[in-house]
Amino acid sequence: MADEGSPPPGGDGSPHRPTRGEDASSRLNGLTRRSLLVGIGAAGGAGAMYAAMGVLGLAPSRDTAPLPVVGGSAAPPPYAPPQRSDFALRGGRPASVLVLGAGVAGLACAYELGKAGYECTVLEASDRVGGRSLTLRGGDTVTELPLGDGAGEAAGGVQRVTFGEGTYFNAGPARIAQWMVTLDYCRELGVPLEVFVNGNSAAYVLTDGMKGPVRVRTARADAYGYISELLAKAADGGALDARLTAADKERLLDFLSHFGEIGPSHAYTGGERRGFRVNPGVGPGAELGAVPSLTEVLSQGLGRVLTMDAGYEQAMPMFQPVGGMDAIVRALARQVGDARIRTGSRVTEITTTPGGVEVAVEGGPPLRAQYCVAALPPHLLARIPGNLGADVKAALAAASPLAAGKLGLEYGRRWWETEDRVYGGATETDLDVGHIWYPSYGFHGRRGLVVGYYNTGADAEAYGALTHPRRLRRALAQGRKIHGRKYGEDLLASASVSWQRQPHIEGAWVRWTSPAGVRLLQRPAGRVYFAGDWLTHLIAWQAGALESARKVVTELHHRVLKEA
Amino acid sequence: MADEGSPPPGGDGSPHRPTRGEDASSRLNGLTRRSLLVGIGAAGGAGAMYAAMGVLGLAPSRDTAPLPVVGGSAAPPPYAPPQRSDFALRGGRPASVLVLGAGVAGLACAYELGKAGYECTVLEASDRVGGRSLTLRGGDTVTELPLGDGAGEAAGGVQRVTFGEGTYFNAGPARIAQWMVTLDYCRELGVPLEVFVNGNSAAYVLTDGMKGPVRVRTARADAYGYISELLAKAADGGALDARLTAADKERLLDFLSHFGEIGPSHAYTGGERRGFRVNPGVGPGAELGAVPSLTEVLSQGLGRVLTMDAGYEQAMPMFQPVGGMDAIVRALARQVGDARIRTGSRVTEITTTPGGVEVAVEGGPPLRAQYCVAALPPHLLARIPGNLGADVKAALAAASPLAAGKLGLEYGRRWWETEDRVYGGATETDLDVGHIWYPSYGFHGRRGLVVGYYNTGADAEAYGALTHPRRLRRALAQGRKIHGRKYGEDLLASASVSWQRQPHIEGAWVRWTSPAGVRLLQRPAGRVYFAGDWLTHLIAWQAGALESARKVVTELHHRVLKEA
Repeated sequence: MADEGSPPPGGDGSPHRPTRGEDASSRLNGLTRRSLLVGIGAAGGAGAMYAAMGVLGLAPSRDTAPLPVVGGSAAPPPYAPPQRSDFALRGGRPASVLVLGAGVAGLACAYELGKAGYECTVLEASDRVGGRSLTLRGGDTVTELPLGDGAGEAAGGVQRVTFGEGTYFNAGPARIAQWMVTLDYCRELGVPLEVFVNGNSAAYVLTDGMKGPVRVRTARADAYGYISELLAKAADGGALDARLTAADKERLLDFLSHFGEIGPSHAYTGGERRGFRVNPGVGPGAELGAVPSLTEVLSQGLGRVLTMDAGYEQAMPMFQPVGGMDAIVRALARQVGDARIRTGSRVTEITTTPGGVEVAVEGGPPLRAQYCVAALPPHLLARIPGNLGADVKAALAAASPLAAGKLGLEYGRRWWETEDRVYGGATETDLDVGHIWYPSYGFHGRRGLVVGYYNTGADAEAYGALTHPRRLRRALAQGRKIHGRKYGEDLLASASVSWQRQPHIEGAWVRWTSPAGVRLLQRPAGRVYFAGDWLTHLIAWQAGALESARKVVTELHHRVLKEA
Repeated sequence: MADEGSPPPGGDGSPHRPTRGEDASSRLNGLTRRSLLVGIGAAGGAGAMYAAMGVLGLAPSRDTAPLPVVGGSAAPPPYAPPQRSDFALRGGRPASVLVLGAGVAGLACAYELGKAGYECTVLEASDRVGGRSLTLRGGDTVTELPLGDGAGEAAGGVQRVTFGEGTYFNAGPARIAQWMVTLDYCRELGVPLEVFVNGNSAAYVLTDGMKGPVRVRTARADAYGYISELLAKAADGGALDARLTAADKERLLDFLSHFGEIGPSHAYTGGERRGFRVNPGVGPGAELGAVPSLTEVLSQGLGRVLTMDAGYEQAMPMFQPVGGMDAIVRALARQVGDARIRTGSRVTEITTTPGGVEVAVEGGPPLRAQYCVAALPPHLLARIPGNLGADVKAALAAASPLAAGKLGLEYGRRWWETEDRVYGGATETDLDVGHIWYPSYGFHGRRGLVVGYYNTGADAEAYGALTHPRRLRRALAQGRKIHGRKYGEDLLASASVSWQRQPHIEGAWVRWTSPAGVRLLQRPAGRVYFAGDWLTHLIAWQAGALESARKVVTELHHRVLKEA
């Protein structure tokens, strides 16, 4: 799959898939039960999502060609960035471009166009670049908007982050799948990578069906064991004879003996995969307690928590830039150049004319250029006056922003490593904190940062409506259900982000209430192009923003070359 | 589980479990089918191993106390290293100790005894420390013994390693589980850690039942999908009504809908977990080819390859020292001190007397001390003359060394990352190469080192009998079955190790042909103690050597204090 990382640069004209990826960064199959409102993918898992997509005619096309495991000539042509030499060959000259928004999509557009000498100016409303790719460190501040409906406790608050030297908190995107184009940008930009531990057999699960937390490895061993026992016994009893040949049955039983660690009697009675109470060493170790009954295991409701890293976006291993996710946006901004990026520049009007674009900026003179790429969140773009047309405005208004929140907890000792023997990964819960993440960097260091919650939907709205101290208190109370008293001890600092309350962002990502207008936004409105994860099938992933940027840059460049 | 990393320092007197861990570093459930000779664990997976252990009365004790998920007062007391102050309190003085062997066990003994001021001298037959913890770099040489039976092609050969700057090859142990005491030594010694990617959803599996390689994610999705379909349909059909209540059945079906990504009809028809032919991006992507039939999936024989990282020793995530596994032995040696370690000192006789020990060394005067710790491989120790007794000799002779081999392939470009989108992890095969490992360090670098084979048993004997160039040719031919032509291209350098042919080691690890004598060796023979992974339930793991060292050091120290 030589070109896995380089999907087609141009739009394929297919209708937008409305639900895919909208919960991607919080796991397609990994949301809390409470997050029903955020979409089909969240509520029903990928199976339900695909079913719904099939109804809408939006499922990926099924190709019955032989599987090209390696290479794969059927893959689309790789992305070809604009180059100065393109003009030498075809005439014309690079155009001037106003890029609205210095998030991942906007920065990538300016970076790619810059390769061919386009004169880009990036306008960013906030005082920093990166958008949702936000890495917090000591000395940073987090400012939040008051809640529009007055339901929030705070009329807008400011947190001053006091994490120690070397501690960072990826408050936005935190992980990259192997196949995503984000890794190609890391390679190209020289951003060093390390493994992000997404799943950890030693972490815990805690569902409503459980009396207390259980290690992932134990829950998994018991679930797989009983599944294997049930299926083996059904096969033994002849229940599957209509479906299985004698050879099939033999192979099935062989598979189940490995998969479920069941013995010749096909009964599941535990085994070393569950873990040990006392580890093997000089002695043989001591097993964990008695294996729970089949009914107990089934009532734990493990389906979601044990498949959280099964999806294509979430499968292990995943990766992170060394030192913080913002290494990517900082590298992009460095390439674009400080002089071309104007922070603190809020766009108030966008006008496209036959010969160019005019963009009004709060507190300054209007800016003009030959083209514009609007890489703002669509729900904010929808509010900006201009002449892009009623249909464009309606299409933008169909993007419904969703809530997500994260809390970073800096501890003065890494108790999860030394006491719980959990090095990275996530504890999955049915609690309102969603996931608890342990750090994948700084192992054995003196300090460490745990993500005390990463939640979405109603849970994120509930936490988002609180002041930071109240978020902290609530999250610590929940975390103690997993880790006991030590979860509230040795805490040095904390910071939280409620994405729906972030100025100039106002949402974690969007859900399309109607996909009808998306196709319109995938084309330029006059001389204004649109870019962002929200225009792709990778909503909520940096890869979506990057893929969108590549598409827009390619189209804009081809237009400039054609008009030459 | 506060003390998971600190198992009991003393032996618990329980009989040795003969099969556990003997294939540990090549995965308890993860050996090639051809490795039948290496033991029950290898041939039948953990299930068979446990069954056999039950017969022998050797299975871990099942404790029915409530599961202490966090903390755990039932855990044994933590290891307490000898301290100088122990003598101040109880009288006496640190003894002199001859440590035989500068592998992990020997170095750890000298390091721990040194904390209390013992005068240790470590005698090492080879010209380097570390034993099987061998990390090869450019400039190193690999010398191999001629094969005893004359079956080898080479009468002993020397490889000069020409890897580039920054490339290393962990030819021995390569990974550490979270619960292992090895991590505690890394913390104590300041050895920085990073994640070792043990399993990778993007890597491949290739079994005898497959026409060609398939991504792990695809094979897993299909297997889990059909298992779920079969079990859901059996439940639908009432086949499990005797076992399941109505509530159980409903919960089972909910679990299976997540686990197998099956829809309401309970049929498995594929899904995004299989992966994509064209990745989602701006467009929805294109699915892989048609889902294979149930019979096809079952005939792939996936049981072993899909459970390779299910075991307690192998579960994700695992860890490695930054820069090479030998960072641990180098740190231990630094603590012990160069002056106390005599390389090139082959022991030729061991004599215990009422007042001390005398050890003869080839080409030098005999050495005397109050105590001795013999931390050599047992099959080599069995050959050394002395007065330790016929029963000790017989017990040592019951340790049967096993074969294992590894090949490091340094490439001039990281095609597995840029073309196959595989970042670390292993491809599991039924081929004679066993596993192919992709590097977990140096992502996106210019060079990279792939482990072209890590095999055991008959496969390791077959490769071990070849000269290095022939090993290389054979392994490249096998690897091309996975990766095609590029597997043989851009190769800069290579090195292989056949552990059964390593001087002064002569085996990867041991299997006990009879466990009867192990208990004897867990006690001192006069003033001579025995230490090594071979005396623990963690054979083949550095953790076994370290746990054994802690036990011996504790016992020796208590004896010295008592005799004071």
